[in-house]
Amino acid sequence: MTQALVLMTDFGVRERFVASMKGVAYSLAPTTPIFDLTHEIAPFNIWEASRTLAHTIAYWPSGTVFVSVVDPGVGTDRTSVAALTKTGHIIVTPENGTLSQVDKKLGIKEIYVIDQGRHLRPGAEQFHTFHGRDLYVYVGALLASKQLKLKEVGRPYQKPIIQLQIPEAEILPDVGLQGAITGIEHPYGNIISNIPYDWLDALELSPNNHPLVHVKIQHQEIPVFNEALMLVPSFGFVTEQKPLIYGDSEGCLGLALNQGDFAKVYNIEFGEKWILQIHKIID
Amino acid sequence: MTQALVLMTDFGVRERFVASMKGVAYSLAPTTPIFDLTHEIAPFNIWEASRTLAHTIAYWPSGTVFVSVVDPGVGTDRTSVAALTKTGHIIVTPENGTLSQVDKKLGIKEIYVIDQGRHLRPGAEQFHTFHGRDLYVYVGALLASKQLKLKEVGRPYQKPIIQLQIPEAEILPDVGLQGAITGIEHPYGNIISNIPYDWLDALELSPNNHPLVHVKIQHQEIPVFNEALMLVPSFGFVTEQKPLIYGDSEGCLGLALNQGDFAKVYNIEFGEKWILQIHKIID
Amino acid sequence: MTQALVLMTDFGVRERFVASMKGVAYSLAPTTPIFDLTHEIAPFNIWEASRTLAHTIAYWPSGTVFVSVVDPGVGTDRTSVAALTKTGHIIVTPENGTLSQVDKKLGIKEIYVIDQGRHLRPGAEQFHTFHGRDLYVYVGALLASKQLKLKEVGRPYQKPIIQLQIPEAEILPDVGLQGAITGIEHPYGNIISNIPYDWLDALELSPNNHPLVHVKIQHQEIPVFNEALMLVPSFGFVTEQKPLIYGDSEGCLGLALNQGDFAKVYNIEFGEKWILQIHKIID
Repeated sequence: MTQALVLMTDFGVRERFVASMKGVAYSLAPTTPIFDLTHEIAPFNIWEASRTLAHTIAYWPSGTVFVSVVDPGVGTDRTSVAALTKTGHIIVTPENGTLSQVDKKLGIKEIYVIDQGRHLRPGAEQFHTFHGRDLYVYVGALLASKQLKLKEVGRPYQKPIIQLQIPEAEILPDVGLQGAITGIEHPYGNIISNIPYDWLDALELSPNNHPLVHVKIQHQEIPVFNEALMLVPSFGFVTEQKPLIYGDSEGCLGLALNQGDFAKVYNIEFGEKWILQIHKIID
Repeated sequence: MTQALVLMTDFGVRERFVASMKGVAYSLAPTTPIFDLTHEIAPFNIWEASRTLAHTIAYWPSGTVFVSVVDPGVGTDRTSVAALTKTGHIIVTPENGTLSQVDKKLGIKEIYVIDQGRHLRPGAEQFHTFHGRDLYVYVGALLASKQLKLKEVGRPYQKPIIQLQIPEAEILPDVGLQGAITGIEHPYGNIISNIPYDWLDALELSPNNHPLVHVKIQHQEIPVFNEALMLVPSFGFVTEQKPLIYGDSEGCLGLALNQGDFAKVYNIEFGEKWILQIHKIID
Repeated sequence: MTQALVLMTDFGVRERFVASMKGVAYSLAPTTPIFDLTHEIAPFNIWEASRTLAHTIAYWPSGTVFVSVVDPGVGTDRTSVAALTKTGHIIVTPENGTLSQVDKKLGIKEIYVIDQGRHLRPGAEQFHTFHGRDLYVYVGALLASKQLKLKEVGRPYQKPIIQLQIPEAEILPDVGLQGAITGIEHPYGNIISNIPYDWLDALELSPNNHPLVHVKIQHQEIPVFNEALMLVPSFGFVTEQKPLIYGDSEGCLGLALNQGDFAKVYNIEFGEKWILQIHKIID
């Protein structure tokens, strides 16, 4: 029986790119269900690709094949891989950091290097700029429909997975938590971090009591936000347009404005230079 | 046999939100066809959600299950419901006004309150900000695939449906028609109203003769548009970039610029404070 | 057995338009797989529609039915057709130039005029502004599901296909190539042309040697770009944000900035007034 095939790219949906990929997949595997994860990853933004993939995979059945194409190195000699997670999901992707957060969240068990000589779409030999169509979805559709086994894509990958530089979340000695701002959730502008929500227990804080918490954001070590926010279960517990801190739907701490855009109002972005700190307010 | 599942949200498609919902649905009901209505409802805009839903449902087979998640109150104690229309369609939604225009257009026959204690996605107990994934699509997929009966979602809803404040269309005594501007149709910028197209009969006007009609728009009772427009069957009957009045594809009166953007050029928005008036021009 | 149905429009995905079309198709043909090509064609831009369609069709199985609705003349007496390509694909579209580049790329074998009196969606007689829903997808779904034969849509089309004015690519006598800029590839801003990539052979140029090539762009005969660019196999062969010339994924010459937006930086658009010239640099 076929598994589902789920596609993620930074191609947008205005151009022919995604539809050409789906045509290739449907031609090879007409009974394979094809879904979109998103095609609106910010162009070339491997960080956003990795986080988005890591936070979506687990909601799909084990065996689902994900094709991720955020590939600034297309046509160069960068490595292409197919990876199996400990949860039984498969990811076909350029090996450029995309797998790093998937590994952190789900664990990666096996990785194989795609043998481009054997698995390029027939007829695509002269093209070097669209491996989403000519390599990744071609391999992905064959894997999802069981026409190709994972081990048949190529030799085992021997190197460590390329890592994105993400500051690890940590518990600070002076009753605080620190981590990186790992994303901005469009279209709302919510801030998400890699600080686990249940670390609030270490600070003896619960959203049920709506405590005020001291929240700092630093960009390249310069403070850009420094306020006491109410810790609440969800957005609607504060007045409209007021800021709040909450546990997001992936189990980490987030910041938002109720029905407003936190990132825009406070001019916050994400990445390894954006640090979030939380401190308990002691009366 | 399974029914189709059709999803509408204000989540956009850039983030993981929609794909997580589809993963949950596909995991529960792998043979259920899943479609998107739209995910580009303006954030938190219940008015746009309600109108868009009301104008789409009838083109789908009776039995189709719609999951609508425009939900500014997520995680608070707002009510979640599953409603059955007189046409046999099912809508799963927060009860926040989304159903009001569906009720007006199709009629709602039965409503049940979703018992969140029984029907939350297993494992989602600690999350309070993503009921699209953790409640609505979970219930919707079970309903579409007949693993859950409508009456099993919870107790009957006893209150009146929450209404949006929309001025009713009316025939004015001085040979005119009046109604609300109920939407702007993207990407064209056409204005749509709730004035039934066939009320033109009361004014003895037919687009086949291309008559000039006096069109006024008021915002908070201040006139913002006041011109004689040609009433025509479709856009191409006037010169490019010229305004026109026409019967839209849902049977109401609309305003447009041929190959232009009426809303942008004349700075028109929609909602209960935007009133459209049509008068016959008597020679 | 049903064929796939692939939809392309300029409707965007925010409104009810695409979902209403899919509802009509799914109601008629519930086992027909429905895919999106794109719904983000620039409004009314037949040139973009024609090129996008021409560059996507071949990746889908022979027999696939494409419904293309970029239709500024909706509701007027413009002709609607169903066309069969030499490759066995079917296109349902207003006859307004959309077919021209498909004919050039794949060849069109047969065209039939859709008899609107016979094939309008029942109940749609009073609507004149949404033939995507009321005519094109209705006919397309019947064709894909074999409930209607191509010859049954109406009489053979007797006129020549409406052509877009696209300057043909040509080899210039002074060791150069010239053609039109036929598109901008969103979201990257790459420039694409109709100059065949393998014409570089005539200039004895190969991307493997990374030669510098003299590239000129003219808009309405005024030079707007005039630089020596490196000819390379793909984007990553030049420094980030540097311009390059390459063979695109449809076999034509393209211009790009590595991880940048060529069209935006150099203010380039596309169409019959935008000419690209390539000259060999002789030492």
